[in-house]
Amino acid sequence: MPSPAYVSLPQLFSFSAGVRGEWSIVSVNAVTGDSLAAAPRLEFTSGEVDPGANWTLRGFTSNARYTTRSELATLGAKPAPLGRASATRAALIPIAKSAAWWVLAQDTRREILASASQHIAIGSEYLPAIARQLHHSRDLGEPFDFLTWFEFAPEHEQLFEQLVTRLRTTPEWRYVEREVEIRLVRDRRQATDR
Amino acid sequence: MPSPAYVSLPQLFSFSAGVRGEWSIVSVNAVTGDSLAAAPRLEFTSGEVDPGANWTLRGFTSNARYTTRSELATLGAKPAPLGRASATRAALIPIAKSAAWWVLAQDTRREILASASQHIAIGSEYLPAIARQLHHSRDLGEPFDFLTWFEFAPEHEQLFEQLVTRLRTTPEWRYVEREVEIRLVRDRRQATDR
Repeated sequence: MPSPAYVSLPQLFSFSAGVRGEWSIVSVNAVTGDSLAAAPRLEFTSGEVDPGANWTLRGFTSNARYTTRSELATLGAKPAPLGRASATRAALIPIAKSAAWWVLAQDTRREILASASQHIAIGSEYLPAIARQLHHSRDLGEPFDFLTWFEFAPEHEQLFEQLVTRLRTTPEWRYVEREVEIRLVRDRRQATDR
Repeated sequence: MPSPAYVSLPQLFSFSAGVRGEWSIVSVNAVTGDSLAAAPRLEFTSGEVDPGANWTLRGFTSNARYTTRSELATLGAKPAPLGRASATRAALIPIAKSAAWWVLAQDTRREILASASQHIAIGSEYLPAIARQLHHSRDLGEPFDFLTWFEFAPEHEQLFEQLVTRLRTTPEWRYVEREVEIRLVRDRRQATDR
């Protein structure tokens, strides 16, 4: 059976940088292209965001767009839910791909992402230590195409860094024209709606 | 080169049934599951809808999700833009697929849609007579997953009916749990924003 993350209904989430939220922003670094403004805290919510936030990015969870049956089986065997008590470190990585990516046919995008770049295989190597949740933004007219949220324990911080470093050297990343890495620490426990 | 329909930025559209719009509603028929309320006219817009409309369905155009390079080439060779002066007939077909569809992996969905059901091949047979534009709704939390808009000349009405009848007999349609067919006539010329 696939992991529940792949079968639930799409849901819209907001990532809002300001003074609210259980996550403290440690750093905001531009990997490619323009950065985002710094802020003390990040709120990750499916509800209303602070209208006074420095910036808010929105994205929806959805069905898997590339993942095959055998890959789903591999991923499902190593469930890594969000919100684990041990996962007090997180990263939000907003990415925009170029028009050259979006003009490609499905089979070409799959070849680049999965066969040439091993995106799904690389990610699954780091399960269950590094939990990931993809949010789609492009179809909302947002500045980024994807918002990937990572959660992990402090002792897995280097694993996280290894994972994103490996992905950034793949052929798929030639199509990334903007990427920002926001690192976070959970230092305030609050009721979460997800 | 793929057709421009596949390369443009995602855009949100609303289909709003009430007293506004250039399209007169001829019929509203439930093919599977519950129908939608009748109304005199349908407005198809990327702008504000009438707050007093009987119902409004929203969806966004996006990149192709299943189409391969060779299929894009076939489709691109027979461009069928929306808004042709001769295309005074239209249909809006909102569809919801079952949870059993959405839990499937990408390769399984592609096999059912393209290999077993010939969805893309069947559609391309009717180009350029029957223009189609797919709008994605599921990720917006809407009641339907897809809103497909068809435009054609009055003399191609039977071709349209043949096209949808063929699609409804495919294995893919076993996953359709709600489908409504709204038939329309353009009897009012107005500035269009698309």
